Amino acid sequence: MSKPLVLNDDRLFPADPSIRAVARRLYAQVRDLPIISPHGHTDPAWFAGNEAFPNPTELLLAPDHYIYRMLYSQGIAMEDLGVPSLSGPSKADPRAAWRLFASNFHLFHGTPSAQWLNYVFSKVFGLDVVLDADSADHYYETIDAALRQPEFRPRALFDRYNIELIATTESPVDSLEHHQAIRQSDWKGRVISAYRPDPVVDPEHEQFADALKRFAELSGEDTHSWQGYLAAHRKRRADFIEIGTTSSDHGHPTARTADLSSAEAERLFTKVVAGQATAEDAELFRAQMLTEMARMSLDDGLVLQIHPGACRNHNHGVFERFGRDKGADIPTATEYVRSLKPLLDRFGNESKLSIILFTLDETSYSRELAPLAGHYPALKLGPAWWFHDSPQGLMRFREQTTETAGFYNTVGFNDDTRAFLSIPARHDTARRIDCSFLARLVCEHRLDEDDAAVIAADLAYHLPKKAYKLDTPAA
Amino acid sequence: MSKPLVLNDDRLFPADPSIRAVARRLYAQVRDLPIISPHGHTDPAWFAGNEAFPNPTELLLAPDHYIYRMLYSQGIAMEDLGVPSLSGPSKADPRAAWRLFASNFHLFHGTPSAQWLNYVFSKVFGLDVVLDADSADHYYETIDAALRQPEFRPRALFDRYNIELIATTESPVDSLEHHQAIRQSDWKGRVISAYRPDPVVDPEHEQFADALKRFAELSGEDTHSWQGYLAAHRKRRADFIEIGTTSSDHGHPTARTADLSSAEAERLFTKVVAGQATAEDAELFRAQMLTEMARMSLDDGLVLQIHPGACRNHNHGVFERFGRDKGADIPTATEYVRSLKPLLDRFGNESKLSIILFTLDETSYSRELAPLAGHYPALKLGPAWWFHDSPQGLMRFREQTTETAGFYNTVGFNDDTRAFLSIPARHDTARRIDCSFLARLVCEHRLDEDDAAVIAADLAYHLPKKAYKLDTPAA
Amino acid sequence: MSKPLVLNDDRLFPADPSIRAVARRLYAQVRDLPIISPHGHTDPAWFAGNEAFPNPTELLLAPDHYIYRMLYSQGIAMEDLGVPSLSGPSKADPRAAWRLFASNFHLFHGTPSAQWLNYVFSKVFGLDVVLDADSADHYYETIDAALRQPEFRPRALFDRYNIELIATTESPVDSLEHHQAIRQSDWKGRVISAYRPDPVVDPEHEQFADALKRFAELSGEDTHSWQGYLAAHRKRRADFIEIGTTSSDHGHPTARTADLSSAEAERLFTKVVAGQATAEDAELFRAQMLTEMARMSLDDGLVLQIHPGACRNHNHGVFERFGRDKGADIPTATEYVRSLKPLLDRFGNESKLSIILFTLDETSYSRELAPLAGHYPALKLGPAWWFHDSPQGLMRFREQTTETAGFYNTVGFNDDTRAFLSIPARHDTARRIDCSFLARLVCEHRLDEDDAAVIAADLAYHLPKKAYKLDTPAA
Repeated sequence: MSKPLVLNDDRLFPADPSIRAVARRLYAQVRDLPIISPHGHTDPAWFAGNEAFPNPTELLLAPDHYIYRMLYSQGIAMEDLGVPSLSGPSKADPRAAWRLFASNFHLFHGTPSAQWLNYVFSKVFGLDVVLDADSADHYYETIDAALRQPEFRPRALFDRYNIELIATTESPVDSLEHHQAIRQSDWKGRVISAYRPDPVVDPEHEQFADALKRFAELSGEDTHSWQGYLAAHRKRRADFIEIGTTSSDHGHPTARTADLSSAEAERLFTKVVAGQATAEDAELFRAQMLTEMARMSLDDGLVLQIHPGACRNHNHGVFERFGRDKGADIPTATEYVRSLKPLLDRFGNESKLSIILFTLDETSYSRELAPLAGHYPALKLGPAWWFHDSPQGLMRFREQTTETAGFYNTVGFNDDTRAFLSIPARHDTARRIDCSFLARLVCEHRLDEDDAAVIAADLAYHLPKKAYKLDTPAA
Repeated sequence: MSKPLVLNDDRLFPADPSIRAVARRLYAQVRDLPIISPHGHTDPAWFAGNEAFPNPTELLLAPDHYIYRMLYSQGIAMEDLGVPSLSGPSKADPRAAWRLFASNFHLFHGTPSAQWLNYVFSKVFGLDVVLDADSADHYYETIDAALRQPEFRPRALFDRYNIELIATTESPVDSLEHHQAIRQSDWKGRVISAYRPDPVVDPEHEQFADALKRFAELSGEDTHSWQGYLAAHRKRRADFIEIGTTSSDHGHPTARTADLSSAEAERLFTKVVAGQATAEDAELFRAQMLTEMARMSLDDGLVLQIHPGACRNHNHGVFERFGRDKGADIPTATEYVRSLKPLLDRFGNESKLSIILFTLDETSYSRELAPLAGHYPALKLGPAWWFHDSPQGLMRFREQTTETAGFYNTVGFNDDTRAFLSIPARHDTARRIDCSFLARLVCEHRLDEDDAAVIAADLAYHLPKKAYKLDTPAA
Repeated sequence: MSKPLVLNDDRLFPADPSIRAVARRLYAQVRDLPIISPHGHTDPAWFAGNEAFPNPTELLLAPDHYIYRMLYSQGIAMEDLGVPSLSGPSKADPRAAWRLFASNFHLFHGTPSAQWLNYVFSKVFGLDVVLDADSADHYYETIDAALRQPEFRPRALFDRYNIELIATTESPVDSLEHHQAIRQSDWKGRVISAYRPDPVVDPEHEQFADALKRFAELSGEDTHSWQGYLAAHRKRRADFIEIGTTSSDHGHPTARTADLSSAEAERLFTKVVAGQATAEDAELFRAQMLTEMARMSLDDGLVLQIHPGACRNHNHGVFERFGRDKGADIPTATEYVRSLKPLLDRFGNESKLSIILFTLDETSYSRELAPLAGHYPALKLGPAWWFHDSPQGLMRFREQTTETAGFYNTVGFNDDTRAFLSIPARHDTARRIDCSFLARLVCEHRLDEDDAAVIAADLAYHLPKKAYKLDTPAA
């Protein structure tokens, strides 16, 4: 017999009764605020087509690298979990994969994945026993049956989740057809994109050469000349803006920026498109492109997001068999002070420019990021990211940035997820942790409770809207 | 209507009732101990001339880079805050600048600046409503009127603040006239200096060439020959010692030290004074000078303070318009283990030498600094510094150094500030946090309360006196 | 009069009453579990010969670099503490050394050493006053008298300590005679070794050339040819396995690994044995040997432990006079992501291989180690190590690894100590901290208490047995 599954109303709040009481009061004021999700990786096709999700395994297990990486780390084959490989879909039976997951669910004890999943199981699917080997089939059948109901289709969930806006992420070589379909539909859900040009900006991306050709087709520009290439960016950014986009996003191995002369940049680009770029050339080109993007942002108003520091596809064998984004991205030590100087020397004092910095290296919070954001008008700090989007990770972010950067040089929460069903669980976690942090300040007489209440609402709702320039309704 | 401003007696103590009770008892025993401020940046002219401070803006806002950097980060122009630029004093009306500050005071929620300022507002000026747009004029007028009273002049505040000793910081090319004036006055306040030779030690300092000439004038030595240059240091150190100085201080970009042969050092110096030093030469020269200073310390007894790791004047535009120390200094990752080895191989086992290490890189606390200080007789750890002189920063320092270095390889608190009015607030914060840390150890049965009480007094008062060799009265 | 010495039953538990109550219940279930000590540095001669320990100073003070380094850091000469130097045993009177230690015991306030020692004083020797100058002689006499009793001989303590298994550490040039003597005795205590080849793997080790010769004698292989050298490792590993060994251990300056071709490796080895290796060659050779060891592990099943990141013998003067392991080893920043890639590209997906990673650089917990261990089947994380084997260090380990790696990619606790008497104290500390961490998760409704109880027992007992392959009784 599986144990009951209960989501305690006080979950994630500190145990101390006085702090918990304040946290409860603060949370009560932000719990029901709409969700702003300005940075994420859901699939716009879901909202365009509004088809039913196929089955529990294909919805919750096979696409979620947070989950299968943990199972893989304990010796479970990814093929057995339904994860598709480069040679095609997994041959695993979805129910067998689910059972394997269920019987190893104890591996997630103490992780945010368990927290998020239990939220989804309980709140979305109404399950009332914990997931384990005994309940695996009950879970599979319950979820599978629900997914066939209209109220579990993407648009219905979007509405039920009280999402005011969600941003997906597309590259400049995406046709944006799903976004156009959404906008032409009679559905009122606000789904926008973010301009993520990595495939045409990173010479080491495996799709770079192909992407550059497609970039030319979609933009009508000569993307193999420096001026044409820049023009193509400007055009595609405009196309993205037309479907509501307010930000670009850049996932680079480091935070390096450069500010080359136009002639130097052109020479570098020539090497890059000729396929003659060394590793250092590739790094310099990515660095220069951050500055080029900032320059364009000053014209077109897009917020510039920098997501640096992941060593992507670390596991060679997994990359060869399964391709990218398979749970083998590992954070690295990331330097910001010297790396960002060229960009900041050029544009850091522009208060109209909005650069949102993220990190996978928590050591930079108090040492580099908070001091930088606490000085430069153009800089704000994105929330605890990826591995650090977790109760303790979110808490460390506030503990290590607030004293130097305050709350208002941060941009509130964003979920950065492709796991659509988990979005309310993630925002709920962030709201609970921010309220817990604020409650401690209140109880230590470092902040008045009424001020804390204003900040809690700002972090949950108002700051993301403002930082991502979402205050104005879509055009 | 502005809200009441109340400083709760339990502020900064942990919420847990048992820990708070112990923290209260420990704090009661150290609250009224005199302030030892062995490292800071107040202006000796204040204590020499004892003139009234001009107005609230020029006292509390315009000179405090902790405050205007935060306002600047939100797009407020430094000119509008009364900050003087290289082209002269700000043209902003002081009251208008104050209003701008007041209406943005919410930006400081959760920061130590708010904590310190509220202490000053409440305890020093008797203000009883919070600072905001509504109370801005009331604040301005109250403070402005107070500053015209004799009891708000520098010497009166010094006495009221129960400061037993304060050290300012001067370079070898300072005439020390203010210090001499203080000593020749009938005022009994103990104000000493610290010997900070950065302008004549750092070949990359913008004043290096000029400073070297002035150094020759003041010392009567040929500061362009290696032996004359060293002799000049010895003479000026003696001059500083005569006005009470017990320490030197060194603000280098890194913690690098060197132990060159005399001939190598001389060759390097020749390049440096010829203006032919590369960046690496400059770094090596600074590195060598730390070892030279340690050698002199063995003779003349000065405590050697190393303050490494700030990337100074990071914002090129701000530096060009406003000059140095304008809130744009950013911490960098700082290596100690290999960097200090040359100095420590030479002098690390000298128990008569006292080197006090600081860091802006909290990752070095548990990894490098505590293990080094927990072994070498010559090394002690300075307190949490600058951005980390904050409630959570001070707590992390204790949490991450105590288990390896104990309490007695640290030197208690010093405030490192030019914001004279905030000094009691800063010491009060440090005492509250140290008592909170100790109280937790007591409640977790890791330390007896009577031992904790001894340690609390040592950290607040006895250790700074001992570490900075201030136990003996001034000559 | 010295104060009473009392070990509170709630020591190390958080003060919050609700968390403490849960921690107590969890701890009650693991307190009496047998000790598994799969990694340590006790002397097998103790268990082979079972002689009485000589006196308090030679047992507890002179061999323990945790203790004398702290005293040394405060200017106390190591000679005066009974520490033997390269020129022979210390001439200090053991009782005088003990008095010196006792009168400076306050230096250890807040350190784990004080915690461990008080446990030993109270639980093992029944002392009921604290150690200080007044009680020094009482301590010396009480402990000295006890050591002459049979129940304080090594085997008796081993049994009394409820040690199910202990591993010592020997190099391939150790004869293993003590281990053979233990196995041939009628004593049932399970003492095994770990294969630590640093002296024959590190070209910069001061004994490298001699060790290589002895390696040839003991293995009967030509250790100066690459193939012979590898064969010697295989033979000696087999010898170690015969006396129960289940792991190898590698203490390298960095975590670097390499995967050279056989021809490249052979060329490198040729340089190394010719004494022509540069520092980079030496580093590369150590790097390659980790991969060679992993390859052998796939054949013979030894668990591979990597203990990187200590800058050994940092204090040149102390090394010259006293030799290695004298408290002057300092942690350094340690990179894992790129360093381990060659090894992981080769063997990281082998779920039969077990690599246990340690670190002295806590910044790698959340940034590198947890993400790596949370993905690669071959990797597990060793516990908080050395300077971080402390109440707050153990807590930071769980706080910073659990959310990404879970509990089951860690291997429970090991003590890594040569201080035999302290072993129960160290395991008790780890159990208390793990239960405190789990109790917090329970009280914050992030984990059910019954699940927490299972995890507590796993961390204290089951995981070390499994990770070190100790589940099966000795052959």
